[in-house]
Amino acid sequence: MKPETIERIRKFTTDRDWDQFHSPANLAKSISIEANELLECFQWSDTDYDLQHVKEELADVLVYCRDMLDALDLDEDEIINMKMDMNEKKYPVEKAKGSNKKYSEL
Amino acid sequence: MKPETIERIRKFTTDRDWDQFHSPANLAKSISIEANELLECFQWSDTDYDLQHVKEELADVLVYCRDMLDALDLDEDEIINMKMDMNEKKYPVEKAKGSNKKYSEL
Amino acid sequence: MKPETIERIRKFTTDRDWDQFHSPANLAKSISIEANELLECFQWSDTDYDLQHVKEELADVLVYCRDMLDALDLDEDEIINMKMDMNEKKYPVEKAKGSNKKYSEL
Amino acid sequence: MKPETIERIRKFTTDRDWDQFHSPANLAKSISIEANELLECFQWSDTDYDLQHVKEELADVLVYCRDMLDALDLDEDEIINMKMDMNEKKYPVEKAKGSNKKYSEL
Repeated sequence: MKPETIERIRKFTTDRDWDQFHSPANLAKSISIEANELLECFQWSDTDYDLQHVKEELADVLVYCRDMLDALDLDEDEIINMKMDMNEKKYPVEKAKGSNKKYSEL
Repeated sequence: MKPETIERIRKFTTDRDWDQFHSPANLAKSISIEANELLECFQWSDTDYDLQHVKEELADVLVYCRDMLDALDLDEDEIINMKMDMNEKKYPVEKAKGSNKKYSEL
Repeated sequence: MKPETIERIRKFTTDRDWDQFHSPANLAKSISIEANELLECFQWSDTDYDLQHVKEELADVLVYCRDMLDALDLDEDEIINMKMDMNEKKYPVEKAKGSNKKYSEL
Repeated sequence: MKPETIERIRKFTTDRDWDQFHSPANLAKSISIEANELLECFQWSDTDYDLQHVKEELADVLVYCRDMLDALDLDEDEIINMKMDMNEKKYPVEKAKGSNKKYSEL
């Protein structure tokens, strides 16, 4: 995400005095709620979806994730790289290649 | 997200031949599933949470969002700015300031 | 649900002194969390699922729904019939038959 | 749930020829989607919620759960009692009493 996009999201919140509502718990609920509006685009069909609607709902998920990074003062690249370290160990290429099994079943 | 972080996420998937599982519908399910592992950190308390666990689950949400942007060939900043245009109209500052009401009730 | 099953669920909670955690908001989170453990059974395939796992997760959703009915002192049949009245109006047979469109698009 | 309520839910589906959409995977998505409309009632506050809205969304979750029991030909009491057997072992009263910890941390 570009710095100006991050700034736009922050300004949207502060202009409306909404930081008071952005507790980590409320943002976790919000991410789940928006994730399910995204899921609703695929409720009855995996292939016949409205791309414009998908874009809007995915954007909503990303905006609330950005709000949560801010609320907890986290660096996006840092937490992702920390988690990718874990994922790469949990799913070694030689075991996981071409498989959709959970790590606990590999 | 830095270009090298995006590249790491992509390499993780292609190394494991997992692009075949990354249909938009499957990724929408995955985003919701991870969003709820994040929500689980706040299941019984809004304030007593395990920050390390929160970081890991938020990272998982962000990684699947990145996968979905890739699966649909979307630009993150473009879809967010498109949605922020909509949000700014739905929630005018003078009406929304300090309120947690939905736009349809403002 | 049989009266003795309902009683078993209630006894499970009171024996553990867990009513204190069963606020409507916490139960709403819990229903979503369990619904997503159910969804995880279908994360990468619609047809290749573990039926035993599905049964366990669907049961968890139903138990938390029962807890929420209790927390709010609601009658299951009453709220379902109230909602079915609404659904039957929103989805008239002649318009909705064979269609998976949302009522707002019918 | 009373037999006549179950019959009403079944008739609603067959009258609209919607059984074709009620795959277990689609119903799992639907349960999560409705669970999150329920969660939305508590998005910004745990205590200031619209009870009528809560009733409607909880009813929707219960209806889709009923549809899933039917789609998989499951007996509600049977799967709940099977799961309660597991829960009672995972959360022994002497360890779990008054605690909101997950069984893996007890």
